[in-house]
Amino acid sequence: MAYDATKLKDFEIAELAEKNMPTPAEWVEKLGLEKDEVIPYGRICKLDFMKIIERLKDRPNGKFIEVTAITPTPLGEGKTTTTMGLVEGLGKRGMNVGAAIRQPSGGPTMNIKGTAAGGGNALAIPMTEFSLGLTGDLNDIMNAHNLAMVALTARMQHERNYDDAELAKRNLRRLDIDPTRVEMGWVIDFCAQALRNIIIGIGGRMDGYMMQSKFGIAVSSELMAILAVATDLKDLRERLGRIIVAYDKKGNPVTTSDLEVAGAMCAWMRNTINPTLMSTVEYQPVLVHAGPFANIAIGQSSIIADRIGLKMFDYHVTESGFGADIGFEKFWNVKCRLSGLVPNVSVVTATIRALKMHGGGPKVVPGRPLPDEYTRENLELLEKGIPNLLHHIATVRKAGINPVVCINSFYTDTKEEIAMVKRYAEQAGARCAVSQHWLKGGEGALELADAVIDACNDSVDFKFLYPLEMPLRQRVEIIAKEVYGADGVSWTPEAEAKAKRFESDPAYADFATMMVKTHLSLTHDPNLKGVPKGWILPVRDVLVYAGAKFLCPMTGTISLMPGTSSDPAYRRVDVDVETGKVLGLF
Amino acid sequence: MAYDATKLKDFEIAELAEKNMPTPAEWVEKLGLEKDEVIPYGRICKLDFMKIIERLKDRPNGKFIEVTAITPTPLGEGKTTTTMGLVEGLGKRGMNVGAAIRQPSGGPTMNIKGTAAGGGNALAIPMTEFSLGLTGDLNDIMNAHNLAMVALTARMQHERNYDDAELAKRNLRRLDIDPTRVEMGWVIDFCAQALRNIIIGIGGRMDGYMMQSKFGIAVSSELMAILAVATDLKDLRERLGRIIVAYDKKGNPVTTSDLEVAGAMCAWMRNTINPTLMSTVEYQPVLVHAGPFANIAIGQSSIIADRIGLKMFDYHVTESGFGADIGFEKFWNVKCRLSGLVPNVSVVTATIRALKMHGGGPKVVPGRPLPDEYTRENLELLEKGIPNLLHHIATVRKAGINPVVCINSFYTDTKEEIAMVKRYAEQAGARCAVSQHWLKGGEGALELADAVIDACNDSVDFKFLYPLEMPLRQRVEIIAKEVYGADGVSWTPEAEAKAKRFESDPAYADFATMMVKTHLSLTHDPNLKGVPKGWILPVRDVLVYAGAKFLCPMTGTISLMPGTSSDPAYRRVDVDVETGKVLGLF
Repeated sequence: MAYDATKLKDFEIAELAEKNMPTPAEWVEKLGLEKDEVIPYGRICKLDFMKIIERLKDRPNGKFIEVTAITPTPLGEGKTTTTMGLVEGLGKRGMNVGAAIRQPSGGPTMNIKGTAAGGGNALAIPMTEFSLGLTGDLNDIMNAHNLAMVALTARMQHERNYDDAELAKRNLRRLDIDPTRVEMGWVIDFCAQALRNIIIGIGGRMDGYMMQSKFGIAVSSELMAILAVATDLKDLRERLGRIIVAYDKKGNPVTTSDLEVAGAMCAWMRNTINPTLMSTVEYQPVLVHAGPFANIAIGQSSIIADRIGLKMFDYHVTESGFGADIGFEKFWNVKCRLSGLVPNVSVVTATIRALKMHGGGPKVVPGRPLPDEYTRENLELLEKGIPNLLHHIATVRKAGINPVVCINSFYTDTKEEIAMVKRYAEQAGARCAVSQHWLKGGEGALELADAVIDACNDSVDFKFLYPLEMPLRQRVEIIAKEVYGADGVSWTPEAEAKAKRFESDPAYADFATMMVKTHLSLTHDPNLKGVPKGWILPVRDVLVYAGAKFLCPMTGTISLMPGTSSDPAYRRVDVDVETGKVLGLF
Repeated sequence: MAYDATKLKDFEIAELAEKNMPTPAEWVEKLGLEKDEVIPYGRICKLDFMKIIERLKDRPNGKFIEVTAITPTPLGEGKTTTTMGLVEGLGKRGMNVGAAIRQPSGGPTMNIKGTAAGGGNALAIPMTEFSLGLTGDLNDIMNAHNLAMVALTARMQHERNYDDAELAKRNLRRLDIDPTRVEMGWVIDFCAQALRNIIIGIGGRMDGYMMQSKFGIAVSSELMAILAVATDLKDLRERLGRIIVAYDKKGNPVTTSDLEVAGAMCAWMRNTINPTLMSTVEYQPVLVHAGPFANIAIGQSSIIADRIGLKMFDYHVTESGFGADIGFEKFWNVKCRLSGLVPNVSVVTATIRALKMHGGGPKVVPGRPLPDEYTRENLELLEKGIPNLLHHIATVRKAGINPVVCINSFYTDTKEEIAMVKRYAEQAGARCAVSQHWLKGGEGALELADAVIDACNDSVDFKFLYPLEMPLRQRVEIIAKEVYGADGVSWTPEAEAKAKRFESDPAYADFATMMVKTHLSLTHDPNLKGVPKGWILPVRDVLVYAGAKFLCPMTGTISLMPGTSSDPAYRRVDVDVETGKVLGLF
């Protein structure tokens, strides 16, 4: 029996469902794990990745299902909700199923967005832990990251204050860091716009080194990007040592290994390689692991979570970030390439609301009421918006996968509206299912579950969009044309110079191409909806993340530090001091 | 059988002992707890304070033993080691015993000091968890603290950008914060001297509010000070709402409640009220809770840990910070007053090394070899230094307690040296025990354990140094004269004006007097050793912590952000990528 999602708030549903949530010991039983493979943290637990992957190494992988979406409104179209719903639906069909999702950041949780745990009857629990730091991975990453900055700034101070002989006494060589070429900033897990641009090291000889600096949100850390793509602890340790923190005065990179801090960073992060185990409100297992920013990283949960999930579950559902042009493209050409894992099917989540927006509907603004166009039947707007869905279906097809379209239905959607979307999706050759998981949980997601089970029997001729041998600028060109629908790419002189350098240096040959682009449009301009035609993708810079091994072509500006709004969520959060219960999360 | 501490390093002893460390389930059994009172976090656990204190509310308290020390060298004289040793010794005598110690900070752990878990056979385990964040309390405090700063700086930005009508739409009133009177800074759990003095909010209208700001180390946070003195969750929540973050342009305080962020801060800190349970290497329970800076807070573990420990154990040993002039004085006049708990005995830890320093021995510098005077017999220096010990014995007596002196013996101490200290201590009427817990564990601490058991039978006429009704300046005068041995107190005009204001305002009547003074001397000057005579204590300012309810008279300068040295510990820390084991902690 589903909870009454029209009356109960998410945290109320969560609280009810948490009463029967499996304990760590019950998960051991339920998932057939060894006792020491489950590491309890309060009422949830982590899974010991290294032990489980070793024990199950000969077990064949389960079916691999990716969930992506059309170009969303700023409200999001329910990818996590759909992921939870699909898992619940597959569970209702008796399948051994589980999912992997991202850990949310404290920034959005305390700001406008709230908890990203799905919603209604398609919700991950426990919600309080999920919203407030989970099992500590984000803190570990934040500390490891900031320790590198401590090492960097202290070293700059000591090199300024001591001559070479004094440095040699401490077995230190002069790194000669260029203070104008410090690449790394500090991180904090909130939206702290006041720390975006700062000056540090004010004072005397013992107060650091005066220079410009910056804070990003913790999920934007290169360490988080690394955690998401690392295949094991060894890989994590190696990547942590290759992070470029700055350049010296001759232009050579200075890394975390040069600062002799990478080992300690890995020590602070040692527990992060183990995914956290949560639950749907219908008690299927949900792995939560990593939460990288989509704009400089893969924006989806980790390779480690997928590796372990595919061994443990017959159906492993993984959520990728944002629209298919960003989320699926990175899943496809980066995550799958690095992991060697091949998906069986992709689910493209669509809402009537977002399609209407693409058809020319009024602007959707978080925190403001939805205009009437979105809550009343409007077939004209809807039909005009459908090409966005068809574009994303075509994108997924290019990977050799025939997607399942999931209409994540709202109670305001009309029969005619749903029928229209279904008709177009099926005309395009895709399976299409309407899902009411928000309202009904797994029972409401049976149509989706059946479509996915059916699709998993299709043969998949999985192929990457470009081979690794393809030079950077060609890769960007093919992504822009084939995935975004651009006519071509323009490069600023700076970006082109960098691109040429990376193309000619074999050290970057195996670096992933990690596009930086808004998810709110197929183009670089978040205001352009639908499927824009006749445009050129401008690349203004190329960032390099040497630890993660990413080259990030940047289109438009990105901020690694969001701002806290004037009516943030923390105003309404509190604790019941009698019970210890957290109130006001949403 | 003790481990060979002369050959094995602390982390090697820890690793051996950890093999048989009680699991959370075994602690339930061993301590007679209910299953749901133990909250596992990996291989350690937290204790559910509210459940346990409720269940045991009618059980009489155990014996309450405080461990303090003489004025230490900068190396520390082994208070934690002595605490662990005493617990092990009492355990060997068959007693139901436990301890409460502070959680260390990542700053010192990654810098010079290393882990503060005791040493040799008097060590708290597991050492890796203890050194690297334990069960997350410090991170929770850091996040809760920084969330207040996010709220403050975002509010200043929004109030600058919006007129009153726009603010009213968001149900916000203008707080009109004076940017030159922002009291609170940010925190980070490392020694980041580069963040001591910073300028934030550089950029445009959406980039915060440009002003000077600062970072302190996380353990210096007022939130940590609050956690250490809070008696329960309700008290914690109330204090969190009273923190003064800034003053408005009229001079009125602006608090965390004004920013509507105190509830969310408490939500982030909700788990911190539960002490973490660790173990000695001989498997007695050790509660770890809070780790407040001594210079602006009590510098010792929490009231909550003592409350729960006294209910659970027949002998509860609690460690107070630094020398008895700081550590014991705060335990006595602040912590016991707030908790209503009465100690049975105090242990004054002394080392031959520190006494020689007080007798005029050469400077002791961390990271440099000890001069010969400290490793060879030198009765003359020792005898000259003994008055420091006698001074601290007299201080403890003023509380109505006859202390036990513990000579924390080093293998370089000679029989004659030890006999001399013993003779003087006993002449002064104190019990005195030599302890070899570092070398021999509990077996080496039997003399100390017996002395403590014996002392616990003494009647205690516990009395505070001053009544709460005494005005601030008189309190400081009496502490300076009676505890530090000063001839009097001088006040800067600024400090005196503040003191007068606090004395005349009944809002501050129940605020604790929290002295800010170096622990490296009985005076305010760390270079003056022994028992200086004929000096005046200068108070240059009085800080107010309205959440913690502390007035802090400041003698000399304090830094809330230590610096990272040129040869920090993180250089030697790493992870074994095959086993996940952390290497190089000390």
